[in-house]
Amino acid sequence: MDEIKMEPIGVARNNVKEARFGNFANEVTEIIVDEKYSDALDGIDDYSHVIIVYWMDKVKGHVIKHRPQGKDVPIVGIFACRCPPRPNPIAFTTVRLIEHKKNVLKVQGLDILDGTPIVDIKPYWPQYDKVTDGKIPDWVNKLEF
Amino acid sequence: MDEIKMEPIGVARNNVKEARFGNFANEVTEIIVDEKYSDALDGIDDYSHVIIVYWMDKVKGHVIKHRPQGKDVPIVGIFACRCPPRPNPIAFTTVRLIEHKKNVLKVQGLDILDGTPIVDIKPYWPQYDKVTDGKIPDWVNKLEF
Repeated sequence: MDEIKMEPIGVARNNVKEARFGNFANEVTEIIVDEKYSDALDGIDDYSHVIIVYWMDKVKGHVIKHRPQGKDVPIVGIFACRCPPRPNPIAFTTVRLIEHKKNVLKVQGLDILDGTPIVDIKPYWPQYDKVTDGKIPDWVNKLEF
Repeated sequence: MDEIKMEPIGVARNNVKEARFGNFANEVTEIIVDEKYSDALDGIDDYSHVIIVYWMDKVKGHVIKHRPQGKDVPIVGIFACRCPPRPNPIAFTTVRLIEHKKNVLKVQGLDILDGTPIVDIKPYWPQYDKVTDGKIPDWVNKLEF
């Protein structure tokens, strides 16, 4: 299958200089969108939550199986967890939109390193994104967020 | 900023041969994962829902602003809707996992064209993905899903 190419549409700026597990709930991040895409943000203020899609550029290589956070949880396939060392280290997190000024979004709760390339921004649409009857394995409740 | 390269980890197979709006709730799609990643699916059966991340390879070019589905809804920035002609035409949809056999997942409700490259598979984690107090603009409720 063919290679796929993406270009960053912006970059994350915050105080997270090193990777860590959890404690992101109050972290505020600025998403600096390339100015040529400023108008692509029109209308985003009507949403309380947005999904930031980013490329985990510090991840080198992937694993097939993995013990999430090295904790007392099972070894699972990388597609059965949200951990970074994936074949394509793409990530997305749903966050609260605090402020939008021109080409900059201020968001809260994003688990991202300073300088991470942003590849897309999407509004949170409950029709797409919300599951009310979801089942997850118990070990997911042991992780730090 | 640098270019980012991804490789498909699989492909979607279903009966959707042409793009359309809505009516995907009962559509069943097989995600054929590259066999070298079969073990990366270990543990996925413990989830009721997974998020299929895909590359909308039929999208040629992007727009900055757009009227979603051409309906009686406002023109908004492409980052304020979920429409395909984005700078990076990446998409993800949360779907019900019906069956997992070896390197094949059968899912329900995926709005995807037959033959679309898959770039990642993630479990639905409510801690990351669920918003209980979300606000969306009224026009989103006019769209077909």
